[in-house]
Amino acid sequence: MKEQIEQANGKLGILIPGLGAVATTMIAGVEAVKKGLAQPVGSLTQTGNIRLGKRTENRYPKIKDFVPLADLNDIVFGGWDVYTDNVYEAAVNAKVLELGLLQPIKPELEKIKPMKAVFDKTYIRNLDGTNIKEAATKFDLALAVMEDIDNFKNENGCSRLVMVWCGSTEKYIEEADVHQNIYAFEDGLRNNDPLISPSMIYAYAAIKKGVPFANGAPNLTCDIPALIELAKENGVPIGGKDFKTGQTLMKTILAPGLHARSLGIRGWFSTNILGNRDGLVLDDPDNFKTKEVSKLGVLEDILQPELSPELYGDLYHKIRINYYPPHGDNKESWDNIDIFGWLGYPMQIKINFLCRDSILAAPIVLDLALFFDLAKRANMSGIQEWLSFYFKSPQTAPGLRPEHDIFKQLIKLQNTLRHIMGEDLITHLGLDYYQDLVESL
Amino acid sequence: MKEQIEQANGKLGILIPGLGAVATTMIAGVEAVKKGLAQPVGSLTQTGNIRLGKRTENRYPKIKDFVPLADLNDIVFGGWDVYTDNVYEAAVNAKVLELGLLQPIKPELEKIKPMKAVFDKTYIRNLDGTNIKEAATKFDLALAVMEDIDNFKNENGCSRLVMVWCGSTEKYIEEADVHQNIYAFEDGLRNNDPLISPSMIYAYAAIKKGVPFANGAPNLTCDIPALIELAKENGVPIGGKDFKTGQTLMKTILAPGLHARSLGIRGWFSTNILGNRDGLVLDDPDNFKTKEVSKLGVLEDILQPELSPELYGDLYHKIRINYYPPHGDNKESWDNIDIFGWLGYPMQIKINFLCRDSILAAPIVLDLALFFDLAKRANMSGIQEWLSFYFKSPQTAPGLRPEHDIFKQLIKLQNTLRHIMGEDLITHLGLDYYQDLVESL
Amino acid sequence: MKEQIEQANGKLGILIPGLGAVATTMIAGVEAVKKGLAQPVGSLTQTGNIRLGKRTENRYPKIKDFVPLADLNDIVFGGWDVYTDNVYEAAVNAKVLELGLLQPIKPELEKIKPMKAVFDKTYIRNLDGTNIKEAATKFDLALAVMEDIDNFKNENGCSRLVMVWCGSTEKYIEEADVHQNIYAFEDGLRNNDPLISPSMIYAYAAIKKGVPFANGAPNLTCDIPALIELAKENGVPIGGKDFKTGQTLMKTILAPGLHARSLGIRGWFSTNILGNRDGLVLDDPDNFKTKEVSKLGVLEDILQPELSPELYGDLYHKIRINYYPPHGDNKESWDNIDIFGWLGYPMQIKINFLCRDSILAAPIVLDLALFFDLAKRANMSGIQEWLSFYFKSPQTAPGLRPEHDIFKQLIKLQNTLRHIMGEDLITHLGLDYYQDLVESL
Amino acid sequence: MKEQIEQANGKLGILIPGLGAVATTMIAGVEAVKKGLAQPVGSLTQTGNIRLGKRTENRYPKIKDFVPLADLNDIVFGGWDVYTDNVYEAAVNAKVLELGLLQPIKPELEKIKPMKAVFDKTYIRNLDGTNIKEAATKFDLALAVMEDIDNFKNENGCSRLVMVWCGSTEKYIEEADVHQNIYAFEDGLRNNDPLISPSMIYAYAAIKKGVPFANGAPNLTCDIPALIELAKENGVPIGGKDFKTGQTLMKTILAPGLHARSLGIRGWFSTNILGNRDGLVLDDPDNFKTKEVSKLGVLEDILQPELSPELYGDLYHKIRINYYPPHGDNKESWDNIDIFGWLGYPMQIKINFLCRDSILAAPIVLDLALFFDLAKRANMSGIQEWLSFYFKSPQTAPGLRPEHDIFKQLIKLQNTLRHIMGEDLITHLGLDYYQDLVESL
Repeated sequence: MKEQIEQANGKLGILIPGLGAVATTMIAGVEAVKKGLAQPVGSLTQTGNIRLGKRTENRYPKIKDFVPLADLNDIVFGGWDVYTDNVYEAAVNAKVLELGLLQPIKPELEKIKPMKAVFDKTYIRNLDGTNIKEAATKFDLALAVMEDIDNFKNENGCSRLVMVWCGSTEKYIEEADVHQNIYAFEDGLRNNDPLISPSMIYAYAAIKKGVPFANGAPNLTCDIPALIELAKENGVPIGGKDFKTGQTLMKTILAPGLHARSLGIRGWFSTNILGNRDGLVLDDPDNFKTKEVSKLGVLEDILQPELSPELYGDLYHKIRINYYPPHGDNKESWDNIDIFGWLGYPMQIKINFLCRDSILAAPIVLDLALFFDLAKRANMSGIQEWLSFYFKSPQTAPGLRPEHDIFKQLIKLQNTLRHIMGEDLITHLGLDYYQDLVESL
Repeated sequence: MKEQIEQANGKLGILIPGLGAVATTMIAGVEAVKKGLAQPVGSLTQTGNIRLGKRTENRYPKIKDFVPLADLNDIVFGGWDVYTDNVYEAAVNAKVLELGLLQPIKPELEKIKPMKAVFDKTYIRNLDGTNIKEAATKFDLALAVMEDIDNFKNENGCSRLVMVWCGSTEKYIEEADVHQNIYAFEDGLRNNDPLISPSMIYAYAAIKKGVPFANGAPNLTCDIPALIELAKENGVPIGGKDFKTGQTLMKTILAPGLHARSLGIRGWFSTNILGNRDGLVLDDPDNFKTKEVSKLGVLEDILQPELSPELYGDLYHKIRINYYPPHGDNKESWDNIDIFGWLGYPMQIKINFLCRDSILAAPIVLDLALFFDLAKRANMSGIQEWLSFYFKSPQTAPGLRPEHDIFKQLIKLQNTLRHIMGEDLITHLGLDYYQDLVESL
Repeated sequence: MKEQIEQANGKLGILIPGLGAVATTMIAGVEAVKKGLAQPVGSLTQTGNIRLGKRTENRYPKIKDFVPLADLNDIVFGGWDVYTDNVYEAAVNAKVLELGLLQPIKPELEKIKPMKAVFDKTYIRNLDGTNIKEAATKFDLALAVMEDIDNFKNENGCSRLVMVWCGSTEKYIEEADVHQNIYAFEDGLRNNDPLISPSMIYAYAAIKKGVPFANGAPNLTCDIPALIELAKENGVPIGGKDFKTGQTLMKTILAPGLHARSLGIRGWFSTNILGNRDGLVLDDPDNFKTKEVSKLGVLEDILQPELSPELYGDLYHKIRINYYPPHGDNKESWDNIDIFGWLGYPMQIKINFLCRDSILAAPIVLDLALFFDLAKRANMSGIQEWLSFYFKSPQTAPGLRPEHDIFKQLIKLQNTLRHIMGEDLITHLGLDYYQDLVESL
Repeated sequence: MKEQIEQANGKLGILIPGLGAVATTMIAGVEAVKKGLAQPVGSLTQTGNIRLGKRTENRYPKIKDFVPLADLNDIVFGGWDVYTDNVYEAAVNAKVLELGLLQPIKPELEKIKPMKAVFDKTYIRNLDGTNIKEAATKFDLALAVMEDIDNFKNENGCSRLVMVWCGSTEKYIEEADVHQNIYAFEDGLRNNDPLISPSMIYAYAAIKKGVPFANGAPNLTCDIPALIELAKENGVPIGGKDFKTGQTLMKTILAPGLHARSLGIRGWFSTNILGNRDGLVLDDPDNFKTKEVSKLGVLEDILQPELSPELYGDLYHKIRINYYPPHGDNKESWDNIDIFGWLGYPMQIKINFLCRDSILAAPIVLDLALFFDLAKRANMSGIQEWLSFYFKSPQTAPGLRPEHDIFKQLIKLQNTLRHIMGEDLITHLGLDYYQDLVESL
C-alpha cells in the first residue's frame, strides 16, 4: 500500500466555510509557525511521534517524518464567511490571539478575504450576515460554491484541495427522505427543500469537485446516505462530526479510565460557560439540541450499559452550555461525576477545565486537513473512521457502533498509519520480552 | 496454550501481610458478595467484560466466564498483622465500611485472626505493634513465615495459595549488593543485613514455598535480582509495586489523554489529604520518599520528554501527601495541571477527587490474587508485566521501560488473556468494515 | 423595653404549611435534641453567643440565656401538606436523615399528621396532591385554615402560635391592584382572584388570628401592602422571604468581603445541582423565575454599582438550577467569580459547596419561629427587618433598600437584641482600649 | 477632633524596605494611575465609599473626599533593597505587570534606585544580596538608615514621610529580654544581639525619626514593648503585621460567615502554590514557621472555640505553602473545609482562588501609607488597631485579643473615620425606619 501513496507535491489549498475564531486561530498559527514565531502545539501531525516495532527498538519517529504529509510551506488558505472581515480583522475581533502575535503576520492574513457565504437564517437564528450569496435555488448556490472552488484552485495554483467546515452549529434536523440517495438530494437542491442545510450544500459541492470534506460541527451535513454514496463514487474521503475539544475531550479521556477499572457511575453533570460567537449561537435551544445530541452519545458507547447494567444502567447524564460573556473564548467547563466502587460505596470527581476553545480546535483543523489530503492520495475514499480521534460524534459505516474511547481511537489512527506504511501493528502483548529474559538468566 | 492451563479446582488461600483497612475491606467485601449482600464493583475479574473478535460480532463475555479463575466460593483468607485484632475488629476500627454491612458477616470475619507479623521499627517509625514474631535472625523469621504458610494450607485444605502484600509503606532504600543474587540475599538473611526489609522476608518465604507474590506497596520487596531469579527458578509469578488508586490512577488516565493530543504540560501539582493509618505512616519523610519515588515516575514514562522536549521538557512535577485526620479513610486529592496548546497558549485543569482509599484498593487485591493464581496455573513464572494495569510503579524486566499509560496496560492485560485463550489479538485497525461497505453499496 | 417583654410561658405551637424535607428535618431534629440524641448545630438561638460590653469584659452569654425564648421542651408542631404522609413517613421519604436517627423518635413523629392543604395547581405545576381542601372560594379556604389554627391551639393547649411557610416555590407573579389594601384583598378572596396564591391565604389566616408569619419561600405572600397593613393593625410580626441557605448564603458572605476590599467583579456564574422535590418544582421555568428574582437581587444591593460603576458596573450575573436526581437533597453549588484588582488585573475564585439543603434550612425554621414569637411578646409588629439575616430577599419597609450583606444583617440582629434588653450597642470603635494604654505606660 | 487634623500639605515620601514584586507593583501602579493609564482597583482610599447617616439619606462619599488624605500627585517613592536593580528593572523581573504597562512610566521608575539594605543572612537563608550596608554594629546600621531617611527627605523636599515594610519574611523568633524596653533594645543594637532582626532596625530608625511604620510581613519587628513604648513617646503611629491577601483574606471573609450561622467546623485544610521570591523564601522551614504562626491564629479568634467547644473544639487546621515555579507570582490557593450542620450532618466547601499575590498586596501598601500618614496628622500615636483590616495578624494593645473578622475590622475602620470626622457611628439597628412606617400608615 505504501508504494501506491501519491507524494505530496505542489500546493495544498485548505478551504474553510466559517472564518471565525477557530479558523482564524488556525490560519494565523500556521503563518506564525512558518515564520518561526510560535510552536504548533496540540497538532499530532506536527509534533507527535509514533512508536514502531518493539519497545526495545526505540523507534519513535515524528509522524510527519513517517507518513508523506503536505509541508506547512506548501499550504494556502481560503474560505467563506457571512461577514466581510478579512482574516486579520476576524482574528482581532475573535480576541483569541494577542495583537503582538498577529502583528508580524498581518500582511499574510489581510490577503485572505472571505468569499460570499451560503447562509440560511432558519438554521442559525442568532447570527446575521451581510456577505451572503443570493440565488434562486439551493442547487444554484451549490454551483456557485463549485465555481468558487475552481477559481480558488486556479488563482492559487493548487495541485490539491481539502475542505474543513468551521462554521456554526445549525439547528437540529434528522435524516429524511431527501437525504436517502443522490437523486432525491439533487431534486431537493433544485426544490429548495428546507431539510437541506447550508453545510450540506458545501459538502455536496466539495464532493462533486473531488475535494475531501471534514465536518467540524455537529450538523448532519455529510452523514447522510446521499453524500456517503457520492463520496465513494467520486473517490473522495469524508468524515465528521464535531471537533472533540474541551469537556467532551476530557470525558472521552476519563470515562474509559473509569470503565477500565469497572467503577460504576450514577451521574455525570457537565456544565460550560463561554462567551464567544459559538456560545451565542448555542443559546438558541434549537441549535443547542444539535450539540447536545452530539455530546450525549459519548458515554453510552464507552460504558456499554447493556453489558454492565449494575454499573452504568442508571447513569443520569446532563449537559448544560451557558452563554457567559465575561469569559469570551476562554471556555470553562465544570464536571461533577458521581461514581461508586467496591460494594457500591459512592465517591465523587470534580473537574474544572479552564480551556480556550479555539486554541484546542485550531490544531485539529490542521491535522484533519493534512490527514484527509493523505487519505485522498492513499486512495482511501468514503468515511474515514480512523480519524474519529478528532470528533465528538464520529461518522461510521451505517450500522457500525462508533468508538468514542479516545485511546482506542488513537490506536486505530496509529495502527492505520502503520498499516498503510507497511509496519507491524502494535498489540501491547509484550510477552516476548520475558521469554528473552528467561533465556538470558 | 489454552489447553495447558490447569483448572481452578479446590480451595484457593489468599494470604495477606497487613490486615488493615485495605485487606479487611476486601475480605469483608468478598464475604458480603458471597452472601448476595453487595456487588464487587471495581473488580475487573468479577464485573468486567472483554471484547472478542470483530466489533460486529458482538462478543463481550464476562472475563470470569472467559478465563478459568477461582470462584469466590472457593476462597479462604489468612494473614499477618502487628496488631492482634481479628478481621472483624480491624474492619470496625478502619471505619471504611458501615456496621450495617459488617454485622451479617461478623462470624466469618471474626474467625480470621492475624498470625504474628515480621516487623522492624527502623522501617516504619510511626507504627508500634504487639503481635510480632521474635527470632534471632531474619532467616529464622523467614522460616517462621514458611511454617505459617504450610500450617495455613493444611488447616484450610487449600489446593493453592497466593500472597498479596497489603502492609504499610516501608522507608526508602535502594538496591544494594545484598539484593544481587540469591546467595548474597540468603547470607544477608542470616546476618540480619539492615537492607533486608520485612516485606522482602515475606516475599522470599512465599517464593520458596511456590506461592505467587504481589506487592501492593511501593517497597522494593521482590523487585531485586535475587528474588526475580528465585521466582523464575521456582516457577512462581511475582509482581508489583504499589496499588494504583486515587490520584495516580487519575494521573495515568489523564496524562495519556493530554499526550495523545500533543498538548504541552508545564507543571503538575498534586496534593492529597487523608487521615487513616496510611496517612500517619506517610507523615514520616523517610516513608514518604518511598511513595514519592513510586508516584513521580509515572509522568516521565507516559510523556517521554526526551522525544518532545518542547512539550514536556520543562515539566515541574510536585506531589504532596498531608495527614489530615478529619477525613479518615476518605482520601481526597486535588491536582492543578498547567497545560499549553496551539502557539503555546496556557490552560489549566483542576481535578478534585473525593475518593475512598480502601474502596479503590480492595478490588485490586482480589483481582491480583485471582490473576496471579491464574498465571501460576498457566505456567507464567517470574515478573507478570501484563498485570501492570494494577500498579503505580510496575515491575518490568531489568532494563525494560515500564508502561504507565493505563490504556496500554489494559490492552496488554486484555490481549494477554486473548493470547492465552487462543483468541485473535485486537489492534483496532478496522479498515475491513469499510471494505465491506464499498462492496455492499 | 426589656421589662415590657412578655415571658415565654406555656406551650408554643409551630404551624408549618409544607411538611416536606425541610420541615420534617427540623421537627425530627428538635425531637432528637430534646432526647439528647443530637445537637442543634446551625441554630443561632440554641448554640450562638452574643458579646456584651467591651471586649475586655469577656461577656459572651448564649443568646438563649440572654433573651427570653421559648424552651424546646415547650414546643409542639403541626402543619398542612398536599400528601397524607405523617411526619415520620415524610422524613423517611425525604432521605435527609438516617433511619438510625429517626427510629428512636418515630412515635413523636408519627403523631404529627398533616391537615388538608390549600393547593392550586396553576401555581405549582410539577406537584400533585391528594390531601387538599375543597371550597367554593379562596375566602372559604382562608376560613378553613383559621379553623385549623383554632383547633390546633385548643387541642394542644398552646398559649402562643407562630407560622413558618416551608412549602414550595410558587410561580412568579407581581404585585397588582388586588394586593394594594385589605379591602381589595378580601374582595379578591371572595372572587377567587387568580393573583391570590395559596401562600397568601395562609398568611392572611395567620395574621387574622394574630399568629406571626415567616415566609421561607421566594413567593410574594405577605410582602404586599394589604397584608403589611393588616399585620400592623393586628399587632402581628411578619417577614420573609426565602430561607438563605447554600449558594446565596455563600454569596452574601463572599460579596461583602470582595466589596470591603474594593475588588472589582466582572462576572459571577452560579450553578446548582439538586435532586429533591424542590429541584423538581424549580425545573418549571415559571417557578424558577420566582427563585431567580429572589437570588439575583443580592449582589446589586451589596455592591452598589451606582456608587462604583468602574468596579461593578459591568457585572454579568447568571444563576442556574439543574434538577439532578443522583444527588437527592444533597444540593451542590459551583460558583465562578471573575474579579479584578490593582490596575484591572483579572483573578478568579471558584467555590464548590457540597451542602445539604434541608440541613441548612432546618435550624433557620426553628430560629425564625423562636424569634418571631419573641417579637410578638416584645410588641414588635409588622415587618421584622432585624431578621433579614435569615432571608435571601428580605422584606423591608416600602421604599427602603434591603441589606443583603450577612454581616450587616448579623449586627442588626445582635444590636436589636442588645437594644431590647437594654445593653449598649456595639460599634467596634474601640479607641478607648488605646487611651487606657497611653495612660498606663 | 476633626478640627485638629493637620492638612495634607506638601509632599509625602513613602519609604519601602524591600523593593520587590509587591513594592514595584504598587509604585508602578501609582505612576500609571497618575497618568490616567490604569485604575487603582483594590484601594479603599482611592475607590471606596463610606455611608454616612441613615440609610435613607443616601450619603455615600468617596473616602478620599471625606477624610483629608495625601493626593497621589504629592507622593514620592524611595526604598532599600539587597539587589541593585532600579524599580523599572525590578518590576520587569517580577513579571507581575505587562511590559506594555511599564513602558510609558519607565522614566519615573528608573529614577528610583534602591539604597543599600540592612541584611542578615541568618534571617533569610534563601536570599543573597549584593547591595548591603556594612557596619560594625547593628546600632551603626540603624544610624545609617536614619541618615538615609534624612537625605531622602531633604533631596525630595518632603514635608512628611511614612515607611511600609515590603521585605521578605524573616525566620521565626520569639519575644525575649532584649525586646522588653528601649534601654535593653539599644544595648542589644550596640552588642549585635542576634535576636534583633533587620526589620527591627528599620522600625527603630523610622520611629526615632518620627516616621510612621507599617509592617507588611509576619516578622516580630515593631510588635515588641521596646518599640511600642518608643512609638508612644515619639508620637509615631505603628502597626502590623503581614498584609492580609489571598488565602487568609478568604479565610477571614468565610469563617465569620460560617460562625454567624453557628455552623460547626471539623477541619480546614489550606494549601498554596506560588513561584515567586516569596515562595522561595518560604521554602525554608524557619521562615515558613513565621508565616504559619501568623496564618494559624486567624480561625481561633474568629470562632472562639472556648465559647462553642461543640462546634469548634475539635477543629483541625493545617496550612501548607508549596514553591511551584510554573505559577510565578500567580499564587493559587485551594481550601477544603469540613463543616457540619443541623444534628451534626457533614458538608464540605472547596475554594480555589486563582489570585495574584502582588496585585492583591499593592493597594494595601498604598492605603496603609495614606492612612498612617493621616493617623500621624490626627495625633493618633502608637498601635493603630483600627487598621487591622489590612493585616493577617493585627498588632493590638498588649493583652487585648485581636479581631480577625474582616467585617468587624471594616466597621472598626469606618467608624474610626466617622469618629474623627465627627459623624454618627453606625450600628445597623435601624428600628426607626419602622417607627416612621407605623406613623405613616
